[in-house]
Amino acid sequence: MTRFAAVDLGSNSFHLVIARSDGGTLQVLDRYKESVRLGEGLTDDKRLTPEVEQRALACLERMGQQLRDMRSSRVRIVGTNTLRQLRRDSRFIERAELALGHSVEVIAGREEARLIYLGVAHGLAIGDEKRLVVDIGGGSTELIVGQGFTPLLRESLHIGCVSLTRRFFANDRITARAMEKAELNCALELRPVRELFRQSGWHTATGSSGTIRAIAAVLAAEGWSNDDDSINAEGLLRLREAMINTGRVSAIHFKGLTEDRRPVFAGGVAVLRAIFLNLDIKRMRVSDQALREGLLYEMLGRIQHEDVRERTVMTFCRRFDVDKDHAERVSQTALALFAQLRLPWQLNDPNAPKLLSWAAHLHEIGLAVAHSQYQKHGAYLLSHADLSGFTRSEQDVLATLVLGHRRKLPMDTFMSLSGTARECTRHLCVILRLAVLIHRGRSASAKPTPEVIAQNEHLTLMFPTGWLATHPLTRLELEEEAQRLITAGINLEFF
Amino acid sequence: MTRFAAVDLGSNSFHLVIARSDGGTLQVLDRYKESVRLGEGLTDDKRLTPEVEQRALACLERMGQQLRDMRSSRVRIVGTNTLRQLRRDSRFIERAELALGHSVEVIAGREEARLIYLGVAHGLAIGDEKRLVVDIGGGSTELIVGQGFTPLLRESLHIGCVSLTRRFFANDRITARAMEKAELNCALELRPVRELFRQSGWHTATGSSGTIRAIAAVLAAEGWSNDDDSINAEGLLRLREAMINTGRVSAIHFKGLTEDRRPVFAGGVAVLRAIFLNLDIKRMRVSDQALREGLLYEMLGRIQHEDVRERTVMTFCRRFDVDKDHAERVSQTALALFAQLRLPWQLNDPNAPKLLSWAAHLHEIGLAVAHSQYQKHGAYLLSHADLSGFTRSEQDVLATLVLGHRRKLPMDTFMSLSGTARECTRHLCVILRLAVLIHRGRSASAKPTPEVIAQNEHLTLMFPTGWLATHPLTRLELEEEAQRLITAGINLEFF
Repeated sequence: MTRFAAVDLGSNSFHLVIARSDGGTLQVLDRYKESVRLGEGLTDDKRLTPEVEQRALACLERMGQQLRDMRSSRVRIVGTNTLRQLRRDSRFIERAELALGHSVEVIAGREEARLIYLGVAHGLAIGDEKRLVVDIGGGSTELIVGQGFTPLLRESLHIGCVSLTRRFFANDRITARAMEKAELNCALELRPVRELFRQSGWHTATGSSGTIRAIAAVLAAEGWSNDDDSINAEGLLRLREAMINTGRVSAIHFKGLTEDRRPVFAGGVAVLRAIFLNLDIKRMRVSDQALREGLLYEMLGRIQHEDVRERTVMTFCRRFDVDKDHAERVSQTALALFAQLRLPWQLNDPNAPKLLSWAAHLHEIGLAVAHSQYQKHGAYLLSHADLSGFTRSEQDVLATLVLGHRRKLPMDTFMSLSGTARECTRHLCVILRLAVLIHRGRSASAKPTPEVIAQNEHLTLMFPTGWLATHPLTRLELEEEAQRLITAGINLEFF
Repeated sequence: MTRFAAVDLGSNSFHLVIARSDGGTLQVLDRYKESVRLGEGLTDDKRLTPEVEQRALACLERMGQQLRDMRSSRVRIVGTNTLRQLRRDSRFIERAELALGHSVEVIAGREEARLIYLGVAHGLAIGDEKRLVVDIGGGSTELIVGQGFTPLLRESLHIGCVSLTRRFFANDRITARAMEKAELNCALELRPVRELFRQSGWHTATGSSGTIRAIAAVLAAEGWSNDDDSINAEGLLRLREAMINTGRVSAIHFKGLTEDRRPVFAGGVAVLRAIFLNLDIKRMRVSDQALREGLLYEMLGRIQHEDVRERTVMTFCRRFDVDKDHAERVSQTALALFAQLRLPWQLNDPNAPKLLSWAAHLHEIGLAVAHSQYQKHGAYLLSHADLSGFTRSEQDVLATLVLGHRRKLPMDTFMSLSGTARECTRHLCVILRLAVLIHRGRSASAKPTPEVIAQNEHLTLMFPTGWLATHPLTRLELEEEAQRLITAGINLEFF
């Protein structure tokens, strides 16, 4: 089995990821992280304090135990801001390489920005729109605007959660004035690039890095955001006020905040708030992927230009050994029904046919667990899987469609979806059920797509004359389906 | 994808199973069942009533829709008791073949017994002991004693849940007297073979068929048995009394009993009770596999002679693409630790080292879902999978070991296991954790097995001199592990 490893020696944490490639998608095998806070150890004359150097090397020796036996072509270790600032004559890099058993590259800020964008882009659904990516590190913050897999603008700024906390919240106090000063400092750093980024025409903003993930987790846990994979401007403001009210770094106790993150949280919030204000961001989606994943994808040499979600779905179908031909037939029928129902059921979301087709491809993955209740196993797999490119709510819709593709309609699960997705998912679920039902025979022989007439929730299917008479199983199942659909408020007739 | 189908035209239900082969294990793709109650339609002159014939043919046409396009070499359709009794000049078989698009074999009772045994044996952990298998059909009951995959004694008796209900409970009444008469009738049928089976030296009894599964489900749901995959003599007696108290077939309303089963339940209980009494059975394990699976395994041509559980585990490892070399290394270390701890921890269950080794092989299957919380995903897969050869409680132990192999120890889950398994599983879990920890580096280079001293719950690991100093990650993780094990009541030291 070919394993790849990426190590990110950041100013706040050191991270190690070990992964293997599965059809161009990364399958993570192990993660290891220590909050070394290298940035705290940087002295004014750009050396490391002996204490922090020791802490860092001890961590690297532990990581070295994992990396030592791996081939150097499959390991990439990069150092960022703090290591960029270190004096040339410091022997830290040498010692680090000895501990790790591999060489360390100290990369420039713009290269860091490029790799971050590469990592994040692999985790996003492709679109034609330009997107802004923000990564707040311990010592530097990277801003990128890109399209598809191509970064267009890249900047690395000298602001980070460790350095800002050290400078403005060092005495353990969080005051309104300190927060303003910290934000103002960020604004000054942002000023030279502010107009460039504002006028770059980005449509969506995505944030990566521990700081941003921690802020999103707190907003979700405290009930200050609507979903747990995005940050909105109001929620961020609320968090800022709450931090000032708390008054002390050591007294911060938000729900969802880890012990590890607390000491550098105030600085991180200041950086993000300044970026929101200066780049006029209303909402930022959160990505799990960043620099480390960028390194891994670059080692795999696979920068693919299709929709990342497409590749993720195909990887899953292969991984759970789905009967592809059958799945494709179900998908074709589902899309043919969709085409007839799009107008009457107002299925206008451009994502809807994609989600329907993906659900059709994935609907049998639960068979890899057991036939009994396989729709539930499939839904479990889809809810818990790390599905690159999908948002949390898309993943919920996929899981719901697979859960509802046979047996009882999961009305409670429909209700738990967000308002806009709810109606659409219920309708897509009905379409998927009919497609699955028509193909229950699993045969390769062509199946007719019935003509469909829908008036609100009244649905009439017209099969070719005589077809149902020669397909008695389908007829019986349609009768049973008509009974079941009543619970979903749908009246089904067929002939 | 190669699909196989088996159809069982029983006197109570018609069943269709479609499966594919996955490394010698069947992966079920579809099941279809109708309670046709063919036996009810058998007239005294051995013809079918027109009404029942019509009902049967309508069902077969629905099944035919599924089977029509399949190659005849991959479809086997067998008829049992009622079709055995049908007059030669009945044209039912011809009509059935027309509806199904495939030929129908009417098999003899002893051949039915052989196939049932084959199906059940594939679902049982192999052992050297002889085992009794009982299958209660609608019109006949098969008894087999076998060893491994070889049936040694086979009998087919003319008693079944449909025929007995028709004869003794036809007027909807269940009286103590009718129950006794029904049981006496069974005893008479059993008499010629009773001594043969009693003296055959069987050690364990297993039951298959809908009747036996339904009885087990009722005993479990009503709280009359300790586990949900076996039937004990006391629980069965209690069920018999409750049926007599109910007094009417139409008034039977036990928890866990389906509508379908109710009309023939009284006859089924009488048959099983008579078999328990006459063959002196105290406890019967329930198997999901029977005639249909026997047909499928025979078509696969794979009658393997290893422990079925071994094959099941290997199939799962392959299905979820486990890193086999790594898993094997973890297993070896776990077994080496086990060997040292067997005596001090009194791990006497002969199954214990097998379960430990299987858990080691399976511990990473959850990575196929996502790295985050993969121990939980693995436990989900193992709890819900259809693991041939494993009992429910063995499956629970496996799932618990995988759940507990890293992070927090699942103390609540240990507590939910049965008394005998609880202590053993907690100890196996500690052993597995240590083996996983030692191999976290995933490298192929040899790892030392520490010498272990255990005094009750005090555990000391002694690594070769200097080894821990050169493996600082292992040392750190052992420190953390020592903290975690305190919650499991175990005191870990190491040097």
